[in-house]
Amino acid sequence: MHIKYNLIHKDGSARYGTLETNYGTFETPMFMPVGTLANVKTLMPEELKAIHSGIILSNTYHLWLRPGEDIVEKAGGLHKFMNYDGPILTDSGGFQVFSLAKKKDITEEGVKFKSHIDGKELLLTPEKSIEIQNKLDSDIAMSFDECIDYPVTYEYAKASTERTLRWAKRGKDVHKNPNQSLFGIVQGGEFEDLRRMSAEETVKMDFDGYSIGGTSIGEPKDVMYKMISYAIKYLPEDKPRYLMGVGDPLDILEGIRQGIDMFDCVHPTRLARHGNAFTYDGKINLHNAKYKEDFTPIDSECDCYTCKNFTKAYVRHLLTCNEMNAGRLLSIHNLRFLIKLTEDARLAIKENRYDEFVESFTNKYTKKSSN
Amino acid sequence: MHIKYNLIHKDGSARYGTLETNYGTFETPMFMPVGTLANVKTLMPEELKAIHSGIILSNTYHLWLRPGEDIVEKAGGLHKFMNYDGPILTDSGGFQVFSLAKKKDITEEGVKFKSHIDGKELLLTPEKSIEIQNKLDSDIAMSFDECIDYPVTYEYAKASTERTLRWAKRGKDVHKNPNQSLFGIVQGGEFEDLRRMSAEETVKMDFDGYSIGGTSIGEPKDVMYKMISYAIKYLPEDKPRYLMGVGDPLDILEGIRQGIDMFDCVHPTRLARHGNAFTYDGKINLHNAKYKEDFTPIDSECDCYTCKNFTKAYVRHLLTCNEMNAGRLLSIHNLRFLIKLTEDARLAIKENRYDEFVESFTNKYTKKSSN
Repeated sequence: MHIKYNLIHKDGSARYGTLETNYGTFETPMFMPVGTLANVKTLMPEELKAIHSGIILSNTYHLWLRPGEDIVEKAGGLHKFMNYDGPILTDSGGFQVFSLAKKKDITEEGVKFKSHIDGKELLLTPEKSIEIQNKLDSDIAMSFDECIDYPVTYEYAKASTERTLRWAKRGKDVHKNPNQSLFGIVQGGEFEDLRRMSAEETVKMDFDGYSIGGTSIGEPKDVMYKMISYAIKYLPEDKPRYLMGVGDPLDILEGIRQGIDMFDCVHPTRLARHGNAFTYDGKINLHNAKYKEDFTPIDSECDCYTCKNFTKAYVRHLLTCNEMNAGRLLSIHNLRFLIKLTEDARLAIKENRYDEFVESFTNKYTKKSSN
Repeated sequence: MHIKYNLIHKDGSARYGTLETNYGTFETPMFMPVGTLANVKTLMPEELKAIHSGIILSNTYHLWLRPGEDIVEKAGGLHKFMNYDGPILTDSGGFQVFSLAKKKDITEEGVKFKSHIDGKELLLTPEKSIEIQNKLDSDIAMSFDECIDYPVTYEYAKASTERTLRWAKRGKDVHKNPNQSLFGIVQGGEFEDLRRMSAEETVKMDFDGYSIGGTSIGEPKDVMYKMISYAIKYLPEDKPRYLMGVGDPLDILEGIRQGIDMFDCVHPTRLARHGNAFTYDGKINLHNAKYKEDFTPIDSECDCYTCKNFTKAYVRHLLTCNEMNAGRLLSIHNLRFLIKLTEDARLAIKENRYDEFVESFTNKYTKKSSN
């Protein structure tokens, strides 16, 4: 079965809905924890349930290299391999080729690059990406795209966006896992007409959902917000929309305001491993000496395991001593914080007070932020 | 309240009993997971409960340096600081001074050495060790001792053992936490008369329990087993006996055979982080390529979370990718393996078949061991 999106309520352009998958239904908007290598770093499946994670993301490029898609297939697919019975989305590897490969050679066929592990020459094509994802047996596969750098010339963006459309078509043609849905990705850089063209042409191919890609790669916030607005008006109301690589609380709220349903980012777990924690009063860093004798939770309003059971002083102690549990406790907190943010957003949408909710959150979050 | 040991049944010298503490009663023999820095590496308190850990160990030397005993005291003691409501034993720091300090200067007063973190000059004395432990508020404190190297001359061992007795007395004199019990430590190296002297003189001071120290520091197994036998016959039946630093399954079984009740070792968690797992057929290393497509649990007889939920192929994948969850899954397994070993030993003692149990375990464990 393919996924089914149900749009339940709108407040302005912000959408509250549900997404039905073979591994359960979750509410949207939703933030997706990233489990690059078939595990969300430091967390176990039960902990993902406990933070009310509706769906997680895993990574085609990484799993292709290790352990290899054939081993995952032999294990019975990604869900069985990692013992996670909730929905899983796999991204196509396009972004990793963009961000990890030092030297890459993009042709019509695909991308030639060197493995970030052993330097081996690799070729990833739209067909190969889909073939790998078919074997991984995720619930949602992504089309192989080129994530355009920022800034680039109009000419480069146009040529790349047109190629990504041809790649999307090639990928769709070879996609054959009947239990897996496939999303198209809108590119187009910062250019309004290219975003429109990319959105319209991608929608014509009739995917199960649509992503907006090429965001959160160093462009200013106002540019990112424009990239969303240029594209989203051409996406159909009856399909889910996913903003890729966005994990900043304020960016998530802006995405939701414009009608985005799904987000992912390594931000919360990466921040965690460096001692950073989201709080409703802004981001804090637990390395700070002022938390040495602070026997209060990271955020007293937070309902996560970490905040219910441990103090800043304790987390700081573990962090200072390089204990792995520090990263674990902070990852749980940061992921729960973003998922709770989408929960609160859903409620606000249902109650037609989304703008007030965003204003109230933003005022508090930006007032004292140490970031 | 001080601890209370209840000897319930003996099979030969092997003892089945219970130990009552302010944080609950546990059965003995028991293996204690090591939580050096106020956390068992990669595990949370609930996971310690899930592996049926009766008591854990934490570390005076490490907590003295970070975060400092005053912060732990202000947090309300070690139980509150680390949110662990089961029994905790703290060791005295003697072993860490022995093993971590590159240059140390042992005098009658105590041990002068350099911090393993910043090289700062430090002095740990019997009084200071007890004072720190009083503040940590563990259920069981250990006397400050010198862990004698192996091998040493008879003269060195004699002088050191006599000094450890004087240190034990000094520590006992300043011990004043009414909710904390205090154990004496038997030293004496490999020398029968010194072990006897140390045991008899330590027992005369009337501690709440007795440890056998200076074992598992590189001496041959037969020497370790003799060290136990030289001392244990002089220890009172109505007090618990703790063999320090021993975590090899066969050594644990021999200790129990001779009448030991408690064990601790960093072995299971350290092995885990290097990819090693105990199995009933001997130790295995998950880095081994033969597990690449092995979709069976680490040990099909094991009842731990890891073995119930994940395959060797998955754990190997995480390990190969340096994912922290590999260490976590293997730590859970290895700790549960040793605790289950003591559970099985308890049952065998109760049923008067301890020797048969050891023989059967040993035959299987040593037959195919890759260690």
